Amino acid sequence: MSIHPAWLPPCAFLAGRRVLVDSDHPLADTVREEVIRAGGILTPHADLTFTAGPAGDAFTLTGDRVAADGPRGMIYGLFELARGGAAGRHEPSFERRMIDHWDNVDVHPVMGQVERGYSGGSIFWKDGVLRGDLGRVRDYARLLAAAGINAVTINNVNVHAAEARLLTDRRDEVVTLAREFRHFGIVTHLSINFAAPVILGDLPTADPLDPHVRQWWATIANSLCEDISDFGGFLVKADSEGQPGPFTYGRSHAEGANMLAAALAPHGGVVHWRAFVYNHRQDWRDRTTDRARAAYDHFAPLDGLFADNVIVQVKHGPIDFQTREPLSPVLTAMPSTRLAVELQVTQEYTGQQKHVCYLAPMWKEVLDSVHGDLTAVSNVGDDRYWTGHPLAQANLYAAGRLAWNPDPTAVLDEWMTLTFPEAPSELRTVLHRIMDRSWLTYEKYTAPLGIGFMVRPGHHYGPDVDGYEYTPWGTYHFADRDGVGVDRTSATGTAFAAQYPHSRYESTATCPDELLLFFHHVPYTHVLHSGSTVIQHIYDTHFDGVTEVESMLAAWQEASSLVDPDLHARVASRLDEQLRSATEWRDQMNTYFYRKSGIPDTHGRRIH
Amino acid sequence: MSIHPAWLPPCAFLAGRRVLVDSDHPLADTVREEVIRAGGILTPHADLTFTAGPAGDAFTLTGDRVAADGPRGMIYGLFELARGGAAGRHEPSFERRMIDHWDNVDVHPVMGQVERGYSGGSIFWKDGVLRGDLGRVRDYARLLAAAGINAVTINNVNVHAAEARLLTDRRDEVVTLAREFRHFGIVTHLSINFAAPVILGDLPTADPLDPHVRQWWATIANSLCEDISDFGGFLVKADSEGQPGPFTYGRSHAEGANMLAAALAPHGGVVHWRAFVYNHRQDWRDRTTDRARAAYDHFAPLDGLFADNVIVQVKHGPIDFQTREPLSPVLTAMPSTRLAVELQVTQEYTGQQKHVCYLAPMWKEVLDSVHGDLTAVSNVGDDRYWTGHPLAQANLYAAGRLAWNPDPTAVLDEWMTLTFPEAPSELRTVLHRIMDRSWLTYEKYTAPLGIGFMVRPGHHYGPDVDGYEYTPWGTYHFADRDGVGVDRTSATGTAFAAQYPHSRYESTATCPDELLLFFHHVPYTHVLHSGSTVIQHIYDTHFDGVTEVESMLAAWQEASSLVDPDLHARVASRLDEQLRSATEWRDQMNTYFYRKSGIPDTHGRRIH
Repeated sequence: MSIHPAWLPPCAFLAGRRVLVDSDHPLADTVREEVIRAGGILTPHADLTFTAGPAGDAFTLTGDRVAADGPRGMIYGLFELARGGAAGRHEPSFERRMIDHWDNVDVHPVMGQVERGYSGGSIFWKDGVLRGDLGRVRDYARLLAAAGINAVTINNVNVHAAEARLLTDRRDEVVTLAREFRHFGIVTHLSINFAAPVILGDLPTADPLDPHVRQWWATIANSLCEDISDFGGFLVKADSEGQPGPFTYGRSHAEGANMLAAALAPHGGVVHWRAFVYNHRQDWRDRTTDRARAAYDHFAPLDGLFADNVIVQVKHGPIDFQTREPLSPVLTAMPSTRLAVELQVTQEYTGQQKHVCYLAPMWKEVLDSVHGDLTAVSNVGDDRYWTGHPLAQANLYAAGRLAWNPDPTAVLDEWMTLTFPEAPSELRTVLHRIMDRSWLTYEKYTAPLGIGFMVRPGHHYGPDVDGYEYTPWGTYHFADRDGVGVDRTSATGTAFAAQYPHSRYESTATCPDELLLFFHHVPYTHVLHSGSTVIQHIYDTHFDGVTEVESMLAAWQEASSLVDPDLHARVASRLDEQLRSATEWRDQMNTYFYRKSGIPDTHGRRIH
Repeated sequence: MSIHPAWLPPCAFLAGRRVLVDSDHPLADTVREEVIRAGGILTPHADLTFTAGPAGDAFTLTGDRVAADGPRGMIYGLFELARGGAAGRHEPSFERRMIDHWDNVDVHPVMGQVERGYSGGSIFWKDGVLRGDLGRVRDYARLLAAAGINAVTINNVNVHAAEARLLTDRRDEVVTLAREFRHFGIVTHLSINFAAPVILGDLPTADPLDPHVRQWWATIANSLCEDISDFGGFLVKADSEGQPGPFTYGRSHAEGANMLAAALAPHGGVVHWRAFVYNHRQDWRDRTTDRARAAYDHFAPLDGLFADNVIVQVKHGPIDFQTREPLSPVLTAMPSTRLAVELQVTQEYTGQQKHVCYLAPMWKEVLDSVHGDLTAVSNVGDDRYWTGHPLAQANLYAAGRLAWNPDPTAVLDEWMTLTFPEAPSELRTVLHRIMDRSWLTYEKYTAPLGIGFMVRPGHHYGPDVDGYEYTPWGTYHFADRDGVGVDRTSATGTAFAAQYPHSRYESTATCPDELLLFFHHVPYTHVLHSGSTVIQHIYDTHFDGVTEVESMLAAWQEASSLVDPDLHARVASRLDEQLRSATEWRDQMNTYFYRKSGIPDTHGRRIH
């Protein structure tokens, strides 16, 4: 299958342009390559000049100049010009903008090669070894740079045996990949296994306070940073879903993270330490335990105890990348800790790149409220369109660009310009009709009023209302014949609502409709702020959601002459599947709740 | 791991016994080996004489003689003596008593090596090749002979690529296995892929009426029967769950089966043709399709059209080996067709050899009503106890012996005698307390009133009440807030009940309680013949079922000094899991139906 970037052709605006790249930094050569590739002319007598200061990613555009704060800004300025960006200063609101890959070296028998990946195999590894031809990785680094990304973690947070060795005897593979990414100003990070000193080092313990363990990590970090001068650091999933961690040794997460941080500190590296810690062997009968509370309960008490180069990485919501969640309270509860917010670009719970679901509007709500690092789990694989669903490219793009431009619609426009530079305005109109509100459409037919996890267990695609209801995973909706929802109030529930600095979620009077069932167990006849009842809202949104998918399909038909036929066919076939799946969601959800509540649809529509 | 038959030591009664085996059939040597092995003396001046007529499996015991109708009867008589059997004539009620293996050559990524196997890997193949040491296969053949089995199918009915080649270039493996089985009078059969002429023969079609296809099968059958003079024949799963079949070519199942039968007829072989044909891509919204009807609808019209050496193989119930089903109506609807009833010894839906579930009482009800061949799906693997759960051995034993002795309790006694010849009567008492009613106990905590398939999809272990409710598999319970059950009556339902020659199932007045919800959708308040309501019956049986498992555990503790410590520990740990699982079943089922019905338990017990 041929490589098909399908989004970022050479920067046509450079054709015939006289360009001076006035810097001796290696990234200046990257900019010069772009000029040559697009048919521009490198000359001291330029009508466009790139300059770079010593540090920083921001840049200023004027009519004939890209004045970058640091070398990377020259590249960002280049792509800003490519999308016809405005003059003035461009500055990211997140200093580190990182893409996390959940790629494995080996193909996992259940999860495949890329965990929660829906776009084929890894672009890094194939058949258990690093790919020989890394041209595609270079192309990918270019895509990420265009999206304003400056860091990448190359392997899965669940670190299996082969991947653990990237630290040691397979380090040359990291070195090689880092070189490709460095070409576009992207720093490479590595997911590590907390038990590596035992697995790889023949030590009897991985206790973070053991001096031999500390020495082992220091030696590893020294070697890594010697081979990779700009090595970014480690990403760690510890004491989570079966992964090893400091709890094994009676140590705190601060002690675990700080030990790794000490090893990296001399080299300027950082530790991204995930806050995704909860009891995944919960008893569904136990109403006192609430998974939503777990990250806060574990981490908020540790505020101020982490080293300066530890970044606690927090999923944007308190549960796990559901279609609708409140903001994780951890993100506002640790003022003395560096934080990163983690988004999920790969559509694990939002349609698995079979459904159109442009996530930027959801992320905007998150990013407006938090600061620190921005990290996002990749949706890329060796699929010819990178992301399985060609329109899912826009999510990868937005995951970076929202740090620079907080307007999801404008970011979508940027992506269209870069992807379809020759396209008529009709195509833009069609894509906006399909994509702008696609997240809300997906929410309508899957996740009413903040209830999540009504998916098929394991693979998480398609409906299964009770699929997780009696499992150890802590993901329940408590639907009975009278009502539905999780009581997380302080008065009568798990008191998760009290983890917020405000009391908005404590009362149905102030809780927004879209999160009502996340925080409250209410009767089906409860009247929403919208004026509808809960049960009628469920019926209405499910019927509406399917209708909206039908409109997407109709809109895409109008685009048949506006895009490449292969691309059109790919999107069309995915939309067909989306319609089938949305219909299945509608019918199963409506039937489930009708069978339970016995309350008919006020419009008399067909419920099976 | 060592081989540990744990059931059939040498026949101690032969020690010092003077025996004459008065036959020159090869099976006479098998009997002589047993005599030598047990310390008996082969001599013409015997006090125990074995004789064999030309044919038939029956035999007559007198004080000093085993007079067998045919050679195999000598072996059956030998083991009858070993279990202290009674004088007189012993005759099987099923002529062919066959064990079907769902073993694969290769390990399937999802299903493992033995499909629906819960006892480790295949005893035939390992690492993709036939095992070098077949001593264990010989031991297994001896076990089967002791259970009165005379035929075996060695490979899975879902025939994958490697296994298809057992017909052709891997035929020597069949030859080798057949030799081991022949040593104990067991005939070998082979599962085949209906598309083999295309897959293996490079033919453009597998159309059963195509002369080249017919010639291809004839040649294959000739070669097989030349290498294996007593080759039994083919087992075929066609047009079922994705397997190829005659429907592809617009031919009937009779045409498909008869084509294979014609190839085998010159050699005396038979075709076992499975009636397990249904639409596994049903729409759950479609209330007119009923999977229970499918086998009858497909096969009853073909009665009289099958060749003499075709045996239509019918699962004992209309759905799929659930804990409680009515007898398949196909078994009484095809008077002009040879039939085999298929039992499932491997406990796919009955506890997967983690739960004690002695199935002979269920099978007795089936076997009392049918005739023809008896086939049973093996529960054996390379586990040291053969069957994972040591007590599950009794199911394998009973699957054969019920053809000779229709009393499940007596058959269990036989198994104990052969397995624990030295055991005191206290052990027998304990085992009877644990096993005699274990099927009914399992039914209590899993499958009330004939409702099945409330299991976790895919692996089928543990509860998930709605797990199959909205799937394409045709396995629904239709529970809503008012009632539960499948209306299969002629008046208002799918009319499956009309496939029976009687009208017993048509009315709740005459339908037995244990099948009520298989045939009727009734309110939770419906009063059973037992006097209880449906909802109270659900609560009561689930509480009782767990209590009964607790009693099993207590009983087994009493046996701790009566059996080998390793065996005791294995059973004890499985009983612990059974109790955990039964508790989970109880709580999920009761909670599910309480949430739906809103009706409290009249005894006020805890429902979560």
